[in-house]
Amino acid sequence: MSGIQNEKLDKLSEKELVLWKMRHSAEHVLTMAVLKLFPKIKMAMGPATDDGFYFDFDGSLASTKGGQALQVREEDFPRIEKEMAKIIKANLKFTKEEVEINEARKMFEGNEYKEEWLDEIEERGEKVTIYRTGEEFVDLCAGPHVESTGEIGAVKLLSIAGAYWHGDEKNKMLTRIYGTAFATQKELSEYLERVEEAKRRDHRKIGKELNLFTFSEMVGKGLPLFTEHGATIWREIERFVVDEEIASGYRHVRTPNIAKTDLYRTSGHYPYYKDTMYPAMKVDEEELILRPMTCPHHFALYQSQPRSYRELPLRFAEMASLYRYEKSGELTGLLRVREFVLADSHNFVRKDQAEDEINMVLNLIEKVARVFGLLPEVNYIYRLSLGDRSNKKKYYEAPEEWEEGEELLRKVLKKRKAPYYEALDEAAFYGPKIDIQMKNVLGKEETAFTVQYDFCLPTRFNLTYINEKGEEEQPIVIHRSSVGAMERTLGFLIEFYAGNFPVWLSPVQVKILPITDKQIHEAENVYQELRENGVRVELDDRSETLGAKIRDAQIMKVPYMIILGQREVEAKKIAVRTREEEDLGQMDLSDFIKKIGENISDRKTKL
Amino acid sequence: MSGIQNEKLDKLSEKELVLWKMRHSAEHVLTMAVLKLFPKIKMAMGPATDDGFYFDFDGSLASTKGGQALQVREEDFPRIEKEMAKIIKANLKFTKEEVEINEARKMFEGNEYKEEWLDEIEERGEKVTIYRTGEEFVDLCAGPHVESTGEIGAVKLLSIAGAYWHGDEKNKMLTRIYGTAFATQKELSEYLERVEEAKRRDHRKIGKELNLFTFSEMVGKGLPLFTEHGATIWREIERFVVDEEIASGYRHVRTPNIAKTDLYRTSGHYPYYKDTMYPAMKVDEEELILRPMTCPHHFALYQSQPRSYRELPLRFAEMASLYRYEKSGELTGLLRVREFVLADSHNFVRKDQAEDEINMVLNLIEKVARVFGLLPEVNYIYRLSLGDRSNKKKYYEAPEEWEEGEELLRKVLKKRKAPYYEALDEAAFYGPKIDIQMKNVLGKEETAFTVQYDFCLPTRFNLTYINEKGEEEQPIVIHRSSVGAMERTLGFLIEFYAGNFPVWLSPVQVKILPITDKQIHEAENVYQELRENGVRVELDDRSETLGAKIRDAQIMKVPYMIILGQREVEAKKIAVRTREEEDLGQMDLSDFIKKIGENISDRKTKL
Repeated sequence: MSGIQNEKLDKLSEKELVLWKMRHSAEHVLTMAVLKLFPKIKMAMGPATDDGFYFDFDGSLASTKGGQALQVREEDFPRIEKEMAKIIKANLKFTKEEVEINEARKMFEGNEYKEEWLDEIEERGEKVTIYRTGEEFVDLCAGPHVESTGEIGAVKLLSIAGAYWHGDEKNKMLTRIYGTAFATQKELSEYLERVEEAKRRDHRKIGKELNLFTFSEMVGKGLPLFTEHGATIWREIERFVVDEEIASGYRHVRTPNIAKTDLYRTSGHYPYYKDTMYPAMKVDEEELILRPMTCPHHFALYQSQPRSYRELPLRFAEMASLYRYEKSGELTGLLRVREFVLADSHNFVRKDQAEDEINMVLNLIEKVARVFGLLPEVNYIYRLSLGDRSNKKKYYEAPEEWEEGEELLRKVLKKRKAPYYEALDEAAFYGPKIDIQMKNVLGKEETAFTVQYDFCLPTRFNLTYINEKGEEEQPIVIHRSSVGAMERTLGFLIEFYAGNFPVWLSPVQVKILPITDKQIHEAENVYQELRENGVRVELDDRSETLGAKIRDAQIMKVPYMIILGQREVEAKKIAVRTREEEDLGQMDLSDFIKKIGENISDRKTKL
Repeated sequence: MSGIQNEKLDKLSEKELVLWKMRHSAEHVLTMAVLKLFPKIKMAMGPATDDGFYFDFDGSLASTKGGQALQVREEDFPRIEKEMAKIIKANLKFTKEEVEINEARKMFEGNEYKEEWLDEIEERGEKVTIYRTGEEFVDLCAGPHVESTGEIGAVKLLSIAGAYWHGDEKNKMLTRIYGTAFATQKELSEYLERVEEAKRRDHRKIGKELNLFTFSEMVGKGLPLFTEHGATIWREIERFVVDEEIASGYRHVRTPNIAKTDLYRTSGHYPYYKDTMYPAMKVDEEELILRPMTCPHHFALYQSQPRSYRELPLRFAEMASLYRYEKSGELTGLLRVREFVLADSHNFVRKDQAEDEINMVLNLIEKVARVFGLLPEVNYIYRLSLGDRSNKKKYYEAPEEWEEGEELLRKVLKKRKAPYYEALDEAAFYGPKIDIQMKNVLGKEETAFTVQYDFCLPTRFNLTYINEKGEEEQPIVIHRSSVGAMERTLGFLIEFYAGNFPVWLSPVQVKILPITDKQIHEAENVYQELRENGVRVELDDRSETLGAKIRDAQIMKVPYMIILGQREVEAKKIAVRTREEEDLGQMDLSDFIKKIGENISDRKTKL
């Protein structure tokens, strides 16, 4: 595990590195404590993560003695934490040793997880290092650690989950214990509050409460079904994005979701993506496959007729259904699914147009994000993801083009004073890219989508245009998204808004609440008038108390409630309340229609 | 061939039957003539069709003598027709004979096509009949024919094409000669004019000329790629249909394009559709498949929560991508493809709501069709497609429900005085349906899409709702489309309009034609203003003559041309012309924007 971790460590700041060591050390303390309390458990592996640590234990050993598999439970956390506190208080030293492979094998004999790891170390020809905590405990580990357990700070165990060894369902299910550590109790408490907030905002929880989407065992894993509510938000976003793109000079096209496998061999995608591609379907004379990306389809369209320099920049955009088979352990609500729709585009440009084009792309991304209330620096930053000239297997070989592309992207980001940082070895195989790094509810950065500079695929596909001199020339292709995968965007926005969608995105924008049955007739008129004005409205005609109706509308986070009592009916007015409990008082229906109509057409983020 | 044909004959009127016999007889005359002129050719098979006849010949025999395979060519038509005229003039009698199977085998020995047919006749235990034309010619045939060749009327050979035996690419490619016959020369001429008109309107031809869609050998057969022009028409239709449906109380949802194969086993679709379904994809623990229809997906969504009678009618609509693997010989432009999008819906209703619901569905269909300029009786009629109680293999067994369903559909059609006819044995396996039979350019009727009454699948899926008494009850499902498969609709509309789309559907609505470079600046202003008003506009800034610019705009069937000369610039006016060569004269740009804006928002069928 540490081998992979160490690559990441170089990228950490000093403060981050201290925290990482603390967590990594806490992971050893956890293992030590668990082994003490549950001697029959077997340790497998565990890393420090971006916000804590986890360790996987194999409790199945216990069952060989005729009993049940040994399961650590969350109820055990207090005594494990107590044991950890003792170890921390004892201020045991972490000491590193290099040992011979055979000696290591003897030390961890009978532990198939460590044995597998030792096999890998031997294969890579690396040295075996172990870390001791005090005298008692030893684990195979590349470090680094804090000096002694006393430096660990504030520790907390968080949760328990089943996890397959190597994340593969075919392997044994292990017990994974998650925890975290911070330098101070205050920082830990703040983090735990953020975690609680994240749980409250979890799109899977809100998605269920607001009836936005569901999964079906009959249909399959990782394949969301969107209800009319979820599909409404989707449609609003899709139409907004498509219309913005068309206004920005994009040409929206439609290409098939399946194609010959050979198409992806030509593009060179196949070797890189085949592990997550669905199996090919052989039918009669053809071998077809679900597309994992749109690029080759847009290239085929580009090639369907001769192209002239006059047509460039030529931007083919599509809301493209894409298919990647993610392991079931990696599926996460809408954030990681097995079929998704990417707001994709491929912009074919002359080399001298590339700088302007990338600027236009970033302008569009920032404009779209702003409508959702997302601002650069605050909610997202850019990452300039560079290739690695020494890795000729991973990256298409063309050193000059790589330099040129990377320098161009850097120049664009610098000139527009965009918030960004650089990251080595994070490029696409066909060129450098700018990643849009969104911060999630926990403040954690995730790549939402990318802008890629591609000089490789135009060569592979032999894409050309006729230049001013009548000669064939090769365009550069900018691969980009404006909003990412629709499913992820929806999941992200549910959490960002905590379900309190802006009016234009709200599945139900207005709920009409007659106080008694006497106002039903008037309520139906109001309902009709709002519907005719394009407002998504529902009428709560149940014989419930007004209090209950208001509560239910608030649970569904409906932005506006129209309350109709006898007073309102007589005054030919409506009383309006917001989901934020603001009482807007009585007003004319026509004034309300004007107000909400403006809010919707301006796509305001506030009520 | 005749076995299948005879089933159809029962459905023909007396006049149609006479015509059919004439064409069937002309097919024999064609074969006789070809064999006389090309003695080395081998006859395979041929039927009379809805508008003529064809016959497949195998010319490969000739090549066994060391020469080229024998190909009849269109150049040979005059002499074949001359030979046919001789046979017709000779007024040879058609005589039917029943022969023993062994005798028949002897007669057609060495002809593998006839031998295969004889095998089938033997297997079915049918009698072998042959028809003689005069003395010379004999063919295996079930008839019927006219009395003698003199009754055949006016005959014309139309075209030649390659055709695989049984339409299967793995078999030998044969030479198919198409022809037709009519009672009189006048009728034949009228038909040939219609065929010419159909060729002019062929959506494949116009699709290419107007750059609406294309196919790519790299991507695969039957998988259209829509350019920005085709995709624009698609988007306009899609948004129109979706908005109409939502206004009519439909709930638009989104469900995945893939699902577990078991889902289609549960639905009972699998045995009926498996021949045209793509192969299943086995990945880890699941077996997934591309969906051939939406029903089970909407049922899964229905079942995702308990349903109450208060929610019914509950209408789940979706622009659903569906996948059916059609044989390559059956692919026809956009009309028959391997991946398509159906404007689909499943309306869950209480039994007592079914009549109103079917009426609402037909109202919506007629409303949508009217917007496209399609009227009942004129452009389409209904077909009430009934089951066959004796065919227990083909249809779900539930005699009472079938009676009830068929009677209900009949009642609806009668009450609304809809133009319809009844057709036995044309239902879905799960219930009777109303087919929307569109007339194509040739006046030929084709099923565009259907409205189905389903009492079977709710049982299979155990769909329920809680009724007023708190008991579980089973809903009826109305499966329906409002506009059919988008690809077919697009293909149909291209032919219906001959590419002259109404303004709201036109990919480019206005083309600006400055007379000289001096008006370019003004032209750019007009261009910007139109764009900002949501008009799809192009500017022709080439240094061509006005005549050339007008011609090119007319070829692309752009509804409006704005001509800007010095006179217009000075008068601050624009000159407007239509693609129908109508000169609308000078006007203010704002007046034109108002005019075209109204035309677009009203979705007018005329300029």
